[in-house]
Amino acid sequence: MKSQPQPSRSFASDNNAGAHQEIIDAIAAANVGHVIAYGDDPFTARAVKQFQKHFGKNTAVYFVFGGTGANVLGIKAVTNPYNAVICAESAHINVDECGAPEKFTGCKLLDVATPDGKVTVDRIKHFMHGVGFEHHVQPRVISISQATEMGTVYKPHEIRSLADFAHKNNMVLHMDGARIANAAVSLNLNLRAITIDAGVDVLSFGGAKNGMLYGEAVLFFDKRLAENFKYIRKQGMHLPSKMRFISTQFEALLSGDLWKRSATHSNRLARQLARELEKVPKITLTQPVESNGVYAIIPKKYISELQKKYFFYVWNEEISEVRLMTSFDTTEEDIREFVGFVKKIVR
Amino acid sequence: MKSQPQPSRSFASDNNAGAHQEIIDAIAAANVGHVIAYGDDPFTARAVKQFQKHFGKNTAVYFVFGGTGANVLGIKAVTNPYNAVICAESAHINVDECGAPEKFTGCKLLDVATPDGKVTVDRIKHFMHGVGFEHHVQPRVISISQATEMGTVYKPHEIRSLADFAHKNNMVLHMDGARIANAAVSLNLNLRAITIDAGVDVLSFGGAKNGMLYGEAVLFFDKRLAENFKYIRKQGMHLPSKMRFISTQFEALLSGDLWKRSATHSNRLARQLARELEKVPKITLTQPVESNGVYAIIPKKYISELQKKYFFYVWNEEISEVRLMTSFDTTEEDIREFVGFVKKIVR
Amino acid sequence: MKSQPQPSRSFASDNNAGAHQEIIDAIAAANVGHVIAYGDDPFTARAVKQFQKHFGKNTAVYFVFGGTGANVLGIKAVTNPYNAVICAESAHINVDECGAPEKFTGCKLLDVATPDGKVTVDRIKHFMHGVGFEHHVQPRVISISQATEMGTVYKPHEIRSLADFAHKNNMVLHMDGARIANAAVSLNLNLRAITIDAGVDVLSFGGAKNGMLYGEAVLFFDKRLAENFKYIRKQGMHLPSKMRFISTQFEALLSGDLWKRSATHSNRLARQLARELEKVPKITLTQPVESNGVYAIIPKKYISELQKKYFFYVWNEEISEVRLMTSFDTTEEDIREFVGFVKKIVR
Amino acid sequence: MKSQPQPSRSFASDNNAGAHQEIIDAIAAANVGHVIAYGDDPFTARAVKQFQKHFGKNTAVYFVFGGTGANVLGIKAVTNPYNAVICAESAHINVDECGAPEKFTGCKLLDVATPDGKVTVDRIKHFMHGVGFEHHVQPRVISISQATEMGTVYKPHEIRSLADFAHKNNMVLHMDGARIANAAVSLNLNLRAITIDAGVDVLSFGGAKNGMLYGEAVLFFDKRLAENFKYIRKQGMHLPSKMRFISTQFEALLSGDLWKRSATHSNRLARQLARELEKVPKITLTQPVESNGVYAIIPKKYISELQKKYFFYVWNEEISEVRLMTSFDTTEEDIREFVGFVKKIVR
Repeated sequence: MKSQPQPSRSFASDNNAGAHQEIIDAIAAANVGHVIAYGDDPFTARAVKQFQKHFGKNTAVYFVFGGTGANVLGIKAVTNPYNAVICAESAHINVDECGAPEKFTGCKLLDVATPDGKVTVDRIKHFMHGVGFEHHVQPRVISISQATEMGTVYKPHEIRSLADFAHKNNMVLHMDGARIANAAVSLNLNLRAITIDAGVDVLSFGGAKNGMLYGEAVLFFDKRLAENFKYIRKQGMHLPSKMRFISTQFEALLSGDLWKRSATHSNRLARQLARELEKVPKITLTQPVESNGVYAIIPKKYISELQKKYFFYVWNEEISEVRLMTSFDTTEEDIREFVGFVKKIVR
Repeated sequence: MKSQPQPSRSFASDNNAGAHQEIIDAIAAANVGHVIAYGDDPFTARAVKQFQKHFGKNTAVYFVFGGTGANVLGIKAVTNPYNAVICAESAHINVDECGAPEKFTGCKLLDVATPDGKVTVDRIKHFMHGVGFEHHVQPRVISISQATEMGTVYKPHEIRSLADFAHKNNMVLHMDGARIANAAVSLNLNLRAITIDAGVDVLSFGGAKNGMLYGEAVLFFDKRLAENFKYIRKQGMHLPSKMRFISTQFEALLSGDLWKRSATHSNRLARQLARELEKVPKITLTQPVESNGVYAIIPKKYISELQKKYFFYVWNEEISEVRLMTSFDTTEEDIREFVGFVKKIVR
Repeated sequence: MKSQPQPSRSFASDNNAGAHQEIIDAIAAANVGHVIAYGDDPFTARAVKQFQKHFGKNTAVYFVFGGTGANVLGIKAVTNPYNAVICAESAHINVDECGAPEKFTGCKLLDVATPDGKVTVDRIKHFMHGVGFEHHVQPRVISISQATEMGTVYKPHEIRSLADFAHKNNMVLHMDGARIANAAVSLNLNLRAITIDAGVDVLSFGGAKNGMLYGEAVLFFDKRLAENFKYIRKQGMHLPSKMRFISTQFEALLSGDLWKRSATHSNRLARQLARELEKVPKITLTQPVESNGVYAIIPKKYISELQKKYFFYVWNEEISEVRLMTSFDTTEEDIREFVGFVKKIVR
Repeated sequence: MKSQPQPSRSFASDNNAGAHQEIIDAIAAANVGHVIAYGDDPFTARAVKQFQKHFGKNTAVYFVFGGTGANVLGIKAVTNPYNAVICAESAHINVDECGAPEKFTGCKLLDVATPDGKVTVDRIKHFMHGVGFEHHVQPRVISISQATEMGTVYKPHEIRSLADFAHKNNMVLHMDGARIANAAVSLNLNLRAITIDAGVDVLSFGGAKNGMLYGEAVLFFDKRLAENFKYIRKQGMHLPSKMRFISTQFEALLSGDLWKRSATHSNRLARQLARELEKVPKITLTQPVESNGVYAIIPKKYISELQKKYFFYVWNEEISEVRLMTSFDTTEEDIREFVGFVKKIVR
């Protein structure tokens, strides 16, 4: 008798997936001849144009290797080390980047507890008390994640309200858009509507979690904020030499509807997964499913059983909450199998 | 009559080339199903094994996105901010990383002028005068490039002599091996002979300049030096999420002889290019051609003419010295065309 | 009629006071001849001996210019940048050092809300969940203030319990002792009992707030932790050249009972101030008065009236809480005058 | 017979001296009542006014604890971490601050060998080659020491020429004025003439080496450069709480002619020491004596004999060069005794 085969797709994270085949094809197609390294090449020029088509001609676009680099360097561009960055307690920059923001920018992160991963003006306005007083760090950035780390999605007016507050206080609004495609699709809006049009100043535009191999983009909607960014990127160890291989992926993602197709698919399958899990007794969803993440409380004793077959992360050990993510390549069969297994374990 | 076509391959840098087809194939082959992100996957396990086959079982192996990251984070692992890193004036860490070593490690770089890019004990021993005196930075690393930025190659006994000096002084020997394959091939030695066997402690193993898309490895030959490296890599913004796509490239490079084939080829073509240029009057080679770089003085007035058709870097403006690099995909036809054009310009 | 004279002593902070006359005398007495700079002098040797008399012979003692330097450099000595420092939300390192700890150490501060300024094991143990997981900062220091920023004082068993938790988890216990004299006097204990004997590893020993002009000491109770501190202090810009003038102050403070006399006095007057304020209707004390600080809620409309004559800080704007500090030179007359004025304003 | 008494004044450094009695008196006089901490006090207001009397009303003046802090924080105020600071190889920031400039500013120091400690345009202009090229650090500061670490003094037109070069290249001119009083006196000029009037932008004004206990000033001659300096000073751990005790020293130094008297005296005695040493066979002066330092080659075998009685520093071990410094309290008798001893050793 054969042992149970390892399932080929888990729900651990959208970065456990590989790359979309169209991305692989783009890389193969870009592998022709020599081009100047470090971004002065036609692939990069075309990819930048795609970004500007989506976000406007005045958008400054820079590619980096990964998401932590995109967040940290984007924030560095608009801060001094005595500044503070306000964010949600659950923000990736706050809990999942091993202190990279503090190390590289020197800034303190001021985090606020949020039930749903969303920063609001009410939750942060007390941070303004020490402005101008040199003993205290000076708030300069509000950083939000779209979609949030809890799978929820900011509506445009929620972003606008934070942007207005930021600008009134001489701050900038940064968005960690590792899953921005999922957010846009969720709201049935284009990418502008939830970024530049809602007042965002700096955006980390995610590639890897939407089907790329590697590569993220840092976008500045006011070019003056990007004035020194080329130096920050290089000193920040995120200037790719063979840039064309990131650029061509972004071109493939953005020139057609690949970004939207993949996000629509993973969002849909997350909702489907949520619907099925809701039916299982003893399992409680903890967040509305607005993007490609499902958060649920599963009693501790079942979790270890489930993890024998499926790798996934316990999100909050205190309350036994797990996180399940879908990706561009999750199938309905994957969900049926997983939910079947859950039902077998949790009776 | 058609206009002269733009040559598809330049001599500007080995990172102006694309990727070797076998590398592309490996990526496509690795794009199957889900694996755990951040390196806990079978591709990475296999790639690490390949490195250990070349360098010994006790080698600690970590993959990062790029070369500046590899150098800086490897050095960070063995230093405190009050330490100094001794290197050649021409070292990549000294002149081509926009101060990333200083920014991330806090260390000062102590550089020495060298005619050939090579550090020697004689050139650096005066840096030992302030040891133990808290007003001075404390030397902790000697960093050498193999091959050097001048295209020369350290012989094993030269490395050994630096290693012995380092270890006697409680320092470690770091090697920037962005072009280590070219160096090994040049000496007709295996990779061990010019690294661990010659006393090197930390190695940046280059991928991009030998036909990969992206990805470098940091190797520690004493695992204790790597104790905290996983945190340094993550905080250093160089932990790739979809790690498998770097790992599979290294597997392709190292499991067979791809690393050696490509380096042999580019070295051979560099020698050929040098031989042809030497014949051109008014052009003087400035360095022995021991790897894939050719350094030559070309009178200023010709340089701008040449650059109208060929992109390459002026290495030393004071003496009108240029650098020409070959890569795995340079052809004999490329050289004939280029030399022909040079002859036409320089009469 | 003469206008009301400006009171010469406020309750704003113990650093609004000048220096104790015995301190001034010590400085004048030390101003004789030449001695080697940077600490290799007999004054420093004698001051170190005084510290070792109080704290034990194996204590490593280093003098620095000020309190923020003492805290930050002491923490730097025991951390790597990917570490985290756990502290109270109200900690000086967290809110009053303009992000100096993050900037210089690279570490993230993990703060916990506390009603009384005290860290407890229960409040912090959830920070241990991510240990060993490279995406998260690694807790390495628990930092407590003795006395706390709320004027409360840790009992030895409370410190011991934190020390045990720290050591069990491979962490160190740091104490910000800007007001350690006040704490020792409050508990009627010697300095050892609330530091080394209770498990503290690194101590910032405060001078300025107990009657010195400037100067703080960083004490390591395990000398191995201090191995590199001389370099950290110099690179941290806190190696005083004319060290003798700090050392002689510490000798004056510690060789007799000056440290104790001054702290006893300021504690006593704080209790007296508290007793008087308690009697004023509409004023509510918010913390037990265990050292030289008094915390009280005073309705907003009275605060601005009071501040016309007396400078002091609003501690918590949300709840209209003020902080009042006594110092070694506060007099009973000062308190009578202040309370009289308060009563006039608040009826 | 009594053994020879240890000489009470050495020639090791001007910071081996104590403080001038007028400085001690000023401190004692300032020790009255309470004033607001951190600089918002009348002593500081008066001291700032004294500086503005010397340097002009638009000078922004900030006090810090010490010289390394003054240099590093002043440079931080005008740089980004990807910038470079050009200086002499012998500069204090380059060799005597244990890498503090690199650690705190992130910048690389580009140093040039100089026979006399002086930077000139010719020696540094090659650093401009990589401007705008992101792989290279971007020069932003020229830092010079006045007097230099070799005891020489820049003439106003030498400073002006560096200032013009700096400003033409979008750089600022920083002056380490640890011994600026000695330089001004040497040139028989006022303080303006060799700073603001010669084009200097940022100045570290030294106190300790001219008779203060501690305390230095950072001066910005264009207030816009100081915009964020209050935060930088605090985050840089150099905001003294009892600021008045630094301020009152500066007031004593600058309100009358104390700064000039002391510097005139130490300069004069240095010349006298030089004249006497010149007469000793086998001793060769290596620099013109333009301030309070004397540099001389003394054969190695004599140095250790001399150091048995006199503590001083070997400046350059390669050529057996020593440095001897005079200070405000050096006496002619000190010089006679020392030279007598030298003659006894060196025959």
